[in-house]
Amino acid sequence: MKNSDFHKFFVDELKDLYWAENALLKDLPKMQAAATSEELAKGFEKHAEETKQHISRLEKVFESLGEKAEGVKCEAMEGILKEGRSIIEDTAKDTMIRDAGLVLAAQKVEHYEIATYGTLKVFASHMGHREAERLLAETLDNEKATNGYLTGLAERFINAKAVAE
Amino acid sequence: MKNSDFHKFFVDELKDLYWAENALLKDLPKMQAAATSEELAKGFEKHAEETKQHISRLEKVFESLGEKAEGVKCEAMEGILKEGRSIIEDTAKDTMIRDAGLVLAAQKVEHYEIATYGTLKVFASHMGHREAERLLAETLDNEKATNGYLTGLAERFINAKAVAE
Repeated sequence: MKNSDFHKFFVDELKDLYWAENALLKDLPKMQAAATSEELAKGFEKHAEETKQHISRLEKVFESLGEKAEGVKCEAMEGILKEGRSIIEDTAKDTMIRDAGLVLAAQKVEHYEIATYGTLKVFASHMGHREAERLLAETLDNEKATNGYLTGLAERFINAKAVAE
Repeated sequence: MKNSDFHKFFVDELKDLYWAENALLKDLPKMQAAATSEELAKGFEKHAEETKQHISRLEKVFESLGEKAEGVKCEAMEGILKEGRSIIEDTAKDTMIRDAGLVLAAQKVEHYEIATYGTLKVFASHMGHREAERLLAETLDNEKATNGYLTGLAERFINAKAVAE
């Protein structure tokens, strides 16, 4: 099992995701500092704490498979985070347009993670890795909840204020 | 309205998406040619046709806003597509592992587009751009359906066969 091609493929994808979560953790404080509204800043602060848990869960996944936790550069997450940074550069401080842009950037991150955790959870299930499946499912639920929270903030006040600026 | 910061931000995001759809259209035939199963290859072929419609709809969105349709490099989509290409390089021809990887790559694309079209549709609605809102909603529905189709293929046979290889 451990030497099968599918096992190697699964572990490679986990390494990709491990790199992606660590890269996100580095960028979240920049997003928090750039946010105009207190609610969005707090959301990023909370999600940084959650991202630490996601990283620790991934380490447990590696452990449960008898594999070493290590990251391999994830081009997709790098591109998504680069886009988030350029939104900060392209929008003015203390505007709601910046928050609308930050929500868009953050939702791209969440959707990327939802696609990845969703598939890896199914892979784990097919391979009979129950512990890994459970851990990946827990993080998947949090990413979905975070995405919903961001939609809620946008709908509640960010979009309307940004359009009116 | 046309000179507002939010309008400019909205148009910038549309240019990003226009670039992303055109980049995807160039990569879909490579994904089709690489696919092992006929069902997945046909899915990519169909989605290439649909992507042409998405591009044409975006051109109508630009037109409805009195803006020129042009693309601006989307770092996120570039990264996601790069990942898809490396999956083709890293997996062997005629294996179901390759199809499992291609489905994962394609679902990352779809989720990226769902996040983007979803937000831009809401922006259009807030700005009162009814025609743009309708066009963006149509493509959003297709991206969601495509994502569901990919999940169905993976569940129906790709994952089980890939694990058994």
